[in-house]
Amino acid sequence: MQDIGTLAARLRDFAAERDWEQFHTPKNLAMALSGEVGELVAELQWLTPEESWAVMDDAEAAARVRSEMADVFIYLTRLSDLLGVDLLDAAHRKLDEGERRYDAATYRGSARKAPPLQ
Amino acid sequence: MQDIGTLAARLRDFAAERDWEQFHTPKNLAMALSGEVGELVAELQWLTPEESWAVMDDAEAAARVRSEMADVFIYLTRLSDLLGVDLLDAAHRKLDEGERRYDAATYRGSARKAPPLQ
Amino acid sequence: MQDIGTLAARLRDFAAERDWEQFHTPKNLAMALSGEVGELVAELQWLTPEESWAVMDDAEAAARVRSEMADVFIYLTRLSDLLGVDLLDAAHRKLDEGERRYDAATYRGSARKAPPLQ
Amino acid sequence: MQDIGTLAARLRDFAAERDWEQFHTPKNLAMALSGEVGELVAELQWLTPEESWAVMDDAEAAARVRSEMADVFIYLTRLSDLLGVDLLDAAHRKLDEGERRYDAATYRGSARKAPPLQ
Repeated sequence: MQDIGTLAARLRDFAAERDWEQFHTPKNLAMALSGEVGELVAELQWLTPEESWAVMDDAEAAARVRSEMADVFIYLTRLSDLLGVDLLDAAHRKLDEGERRYDAATYRGSARKAPPLQ
Repeated sequence: MQDIGTLAARLRDFAAERDWEQFHTPKNLAMALSGEVGELVAELQWLTPEESWAVMDDAEAAARVRSEMADVFIYLTRLSDLLGVDLLDAAHRKLDEGERRYDAATYRGSARKAPPLQ
Repeated sequence: MQDIGTLAARLRDFAAERDWEQFHTPKNLAMALSGEVGELVAELQWLTPEESWAVMDDAEAAARVRSEMADVFIYLTRLSDLLGVDLLDAAHRKLDEGERRYDAATYRGSARKAPPLQ
Repeated sequence: MQDIGTLAARLRDFAAERDWEQFHTPKNLAMALSGEVGELVAELQWLTPEESWAVMDDAEAAARVRSEMADVFIYLTRLSDLLGVDLLDAAHRKLDEGERRYDAATYRGSARKAPPLQ
């Protein structure tokens, strides 16, 4: 069954077979992640919000978006594996914090930033 | 059991409860992803490669890195859910392509970019 | 008279006085630039296009935008100084190329990307 | 004489001639800036710090770096023009603040972040 751990293991093998571990320092992986997010942003930068909802309707644009999102996820997974960060666990903990910081009554319909939890 | 689909569902509820779906256009989510990657990069920017390997040894730095990686993963998952992109499937297909583009004999130990597949 | 050269010189002194040159490798400066652009993007990410036109009308938001743009410009100038890149000259040459790649008749009103010049 | 104002004026004409002003909302320009910084970061991501100092020694790499830095500067200038931000003035004010926040005696040789000014 596919899960993040399976992907992380495949990425370890992929890097090891090519002797690429030397390039996979946390600094370099963060930079690679940044570069790939830049490519994803570039796919949407000239679209209106409405056009951005329809970006997957064009087969070529959809393929590029899918490819860039794959690259972002690949570098994020690789970095999480090397730093020992469990992405799903960290995300759920962040949402637990988000539920306390952004109670629905106060922040409904608002994009303003909440102060940090004490 | 935790998986990306469970996280995506929790993010749908989190946004719906706060009437935040109006802010979650693909453009805005790509920008949010970009902002969070920037915060992650900032945690490592002044470190040497060696120091970056040890970033998780400092409890406060580790908490910030974990928090920023969670934010990146949250926005990536939310965007993938709204655009109908299966992150794990897309990543594995990208690696299948990577195995053809970057055969180990030619690219071992090298970080140069390979031409696209024909 | 204020110009980029004067800013670059002030940045050299600022770094030298604090023994910060050790941190200003091109990699680190590119990462810092990326982090600051992330902060700028974060100021606009939840705004509609129309709201983004009015971001400078709110005094606090305007101050944050000005501060982030200053940081981006500072790191870009510092990096250009250390790599020997003349930003204004490079920009004008890029526009000369842009005028050849994007002739007005063909690209008027369109955001599509032009093929590279032969 | 070349200065930022001259570049901003050329960018206004360039956009007007192609009826591109519709695409140049502050949101879109911030996204474009983010995409271009991503391309610049990608040029340095696999290099060691030492190799990054020598990136301009390779003619092709140097041309790509110069091109990406030009693109970053172009979008930053365009955005500053549309938002009414004086980049040089904002940068110098940020450095004035930096001199107060980061007194040389306390922060010499250290990359730690200083608390904001009161």
